[in-house]
Amino acid sequence: MKHLLGLEGISAEEITRFLDTAESLKEVSERSVKKVPALRGVTVANLFFENSTRTRISFELAEKRLSADSVNFTTSGSSVQKGESLRDTAQNIEAMRVQMIVIRHSAAGAPHFLASLLNGSVINAGDGAHEHPTQGLLDMFTLRERWGGFDGRRVVIVGDIAHSRVARSNIHGLVTMGAKVTVCGPPTLIPHDVERLGVTVETDLKQALEGADAVNVLRIQMERQQRGLFPSIDEYARVWGINRSVLKNAQKNCIVMHPGPMNRGIEIAQDVADGEHSVILDQVTNGVAVRMAVLYLLSGGAAVESEEEVPQPTEARAAREGKQVA
Amino acid sequence: MKHLLGLEGISAEEITRFLDTAESLKEVSERSVKKVPALRGVTVANLFFENSTRTRISFELAEKRLSADSVNFTTSGSSVQKGESLRDTAQNIEAMRVQMIVIRHSAAGAPHFLASLLNGSVINAGDGAHEHPTQGLLDMFTLRERWGGFDGRRVVIVGDIAHSRVARSNIHGLVTMGAKVTVCGPPTLIPHDVERLGVTVETDLKQALEGADAVNVLRIQMERQQRGLFPSIDEYARVWGINRSVLKNAQKNCIVMHPGPMNRGIEIAQDVADGEHSVILDQVTNGVAVRMAVLYLLSGGAAVESEEEVPQPTEARAAREGKQVA
Amino acid sequence: MKHLLGLEGISAEEITRFLDTAESLKEVSERSVKKVPALRGVTVANLFFENSTRTRISFELAEKRLSADSVNFTTSGSSVQKGESLRDTAQNIEAMRVQMIVIRHSAAGAPHFLASLLNGSVINAGDGAHEHPTQGLLDMFTLRERWGGFDGRRVVIVGDIAHSRVARSNIHGLVTMGAKVTVCGPPTLIPHDVERLGVTVETDLKQALEGADAVNVLRIQMERQQRGLFPSIDEYARVWGINRSVLKNAQKNCIVMHPGPMNRGIEIAQDVADGEHSVILDQVTNGVAVRMAVLYLLSGGAAVESEEEVPQPTEARAAREGKQVA
Repeated sequence: MKHLLGLEGISAEEITRFLDTAESLKEVSERSVKKVPALRGVTVANLFFENSTRTRISFELAEKRLSADSVNFTTSGSSVQKGESLRDTAQNIEAMRVQMIVIRHSAAGAPHFLASLLNGSVINAGDGAHEHPTQGLLDMFTLRERWGGFDGRRVVIVGDIAHSRVARSNIHGLVTMGAKVTVCGPPTLIPHDVERLGVTVETDLKQALEGADAVNVLRIQMERQQRGLFPSIDEYARVWGINRSVLKNAQKNCIVMHPGPMNRGIEIAQDVADGEHSVILDQVTNGVAVRMAVLYLLSGGAAVESEEEVPQPTEARAAREGKQVA
Repeated sequence: MKHLLGLEGISAEEITRFLDTAESLKEVSERSVKKVPALRGVTVANLFFENSTRTRISFELAEKRLSADSVNFTTSGSSVQKGESLRDTAQNIEAMRVQMIVIRHSAAGAPHFLASLLNGSVINAGDGAHEHPTQGLLDMFTLRERWGGFDGRRVVIVGDIAHSRVARSNIHGLVTMGAKVTVCGPPTLIPHDVERLGVTVETDLKQALEGADAVNVLRIQMERQQRGLFPSIDEYARVWGINRSVLKNAQKNCIVMHPGPMNRGIEIAQDVADGEHSVILDQVTNGVAVRMAVLYLLSGGAAVESEEEVPQPTEARAAREGKQVA
Repeated sequence: MKHLLGLEGISAEEITRFLDTAESLKEVSERSVKKVPALRGVTVANLFFENSTRTRISFELAEKRLSADSVNFTTSGSSVQKGESLRDTAQNIEAMRVQMIVIRHSAAGAPHFLASLLNGSVINAGDGAHEHPTQGLLDMFTLRERWGGFDGRRVVIVGDIAHSRVARSNIHGLVTMGAKVTVCGPPTLIPHDVERLGVTVETDLKQALEGADAVNVLRIQMERQQRGLFPSIDEYARVWGINRSVLKNAQKNCIVMHPGPMNRGIEIAQDVADGEHSVILDQVTNGVAVRMAVLYLLSGGAAVESEEEVPQPTEARAAREGKQVA
């Protein structure tokens, strides 16, 4: 695999390969010396045409911990024209022999457009309301860490399904891996043909949570309210907010996830965000590991030419590395 | 010591340890290869919620010269909400296994809030009108370099004492180390109970400079004028500006310091800024060394596990390092 | 040579040394491990007082591929005052023991001002309408790569000659190297005494292209139109735009260059930009190599003390390096 543009159409084997690699790379961030030389001398460009401190920093850390060299290109949407200009920007960056491009863009399909033009690898870090595949993978990684697998597990995604790239990537990945997915939210925020993706729609939150093993709470975009897509923030919190009371309908050990940043007290109650169900900070930790895995696997023949060269972050090696540093 | 939140309450031994370590690390920046591997694989986040090119670059260089991996988070105050949001931001960054956080924030106490939440080390790079401890340490380092020690030395701090974190950190550090500190400035800009901190107040500049061994000239914030805290920039320059003439009241070798950026011709005259009394560029040079020392000592058990592993930047080692590079 | 402020007054030997070094360093960016340790531990500051994503990223990549440590200082012109402030900023950065400064500034002469103040090396990355020497060198590198040399070659520069630092650097370099240079564009955008620089002026584009071996197409600044310097974008494209039809007047193998970013369909037609005459993406690739060469040669005695230490990026060495990475 050369690009990661979305989880749609990615096989269970490929997803498993990402998750397994992330599992072995997660340990790197737990060492005192958080660095392996896997991508040394590989150049990565982070093109963020939309603001995103968290995702950008997560990718940057993944790159640094793999010893890649990265350059950042951050811009507000207004200063860059679309179409030709994105093409020229990308071709220029590739002409500088950048091997991997991480792109976030407000236009759905922007990463696919780049992938069609460039020889290097393209990683979608969020494109419009389309996909956010590394978020999908890190959510799945977090679930698998708790569950071991996905068979027969029920995941409920709550919120603005229609505009959420997080929802879309989770749906594609989870359905492929054999989980049962229910989407739930205000009817105005659920695409009318979403069942086509293999999910169940439920507009009553209590009903949706019945027997749920995990609930993924989407961030509500305040600006949607102005467009009349839901009545008010207060009502949203009352009807769709995840709190201790409504969670009683779910499985006792139900996992609560949120892609961040949270609107505490709106889509998620304070005590749930910080409570025993929450794995929200685990998701953040796992995000770095998953992004390291994606960068590592897509770089393929670039820095690592044979299977023997795959970094084996065992304790013995970590200890050795620690010694070298002193 | 795990955090550096301020110089208040820091013992003379601890301050001396920072200054001694800075003295041995200062040499690194004088080599042709300005780098030691002390913090290799350690992740540092620079969270600048207030703009500060100089301090940010000084910390960044300190991090790079210790071989740390750093990520930058810069934002204008307006785009980040306070309270919960700062907490979530910090917890997210720590979840990414960032070991050290350098924070500048317009709210006094923001670094303490983070320190109470996080397992990693927090370094205050300036919080509101509260403290700026690395500036205090670098000012003291610069004085000790000239004087050998602080006993019986008289330091005058001139300007807007009430709103200055530089003043506060200098006062705490210098008083602890046994120097005599006088503060001087427009009465509206001197806190009424400042003597409580162990300093003398003098509202006449000539009187204040009488016998002074050093004068630390604070930057005047132009916006204070609009708030009626002093009559006009011209009058400020005439009454409180440090020029050759008023310096005649001080000791012959009186040292002139300024934390930068200078308003030349206002709080400090051109020829004083560039004259033989000035150590202003030495302060900048020493800032990198002091920040290296703070990062190094606070990282403690992180990358360097035993005392033997402390980098000994002797000439022999520098030469050896130089060889390795070729 | 300590600084690179412009190509005016630079000898043919010196230009050749830059081009030869770039030729040997170009290979580094073609390796899987795109990195040599030539500038390890050398600190470079990129001071961009004017926005320029491409040039900044090109310099950043050049620095990373030489293993330098770099810090970025980006600012809009408005937030920095001129004169004293630039001086203080530069002196501060040098006090932090930054050895090399790359500066882009809207004021012609800003790099020369810094060079007169500082001990470190100053590289002009574009100063007002004055010079952009690394662009001049990369354009020449690209031409030499195709031609072998410059003797008897005819280069036509088309567009806003009066306001173009790209034109000025190209003219100085090309004339020194023995090429024949013609400038062409709207009479209002051609300096009246430009022949003084050793070039021919031609206001008819077809005439200018007669027998041309290369045409360097300048970017048109849209804001010039408002100032009445040319009638309209449409008319500019019609009269001065480089398209397939007008290119028929040039040599059959005529090279088309553009410093980017292109206004496609205005100064250059779509099919020419992407056509067989175009070397525009080669220019971008060569830009990294030329900037590596400039950084490397100017760093001189800094990291590399003897001629033997010059990195020899031969295949053997690349292979060895590749091994170390695994």
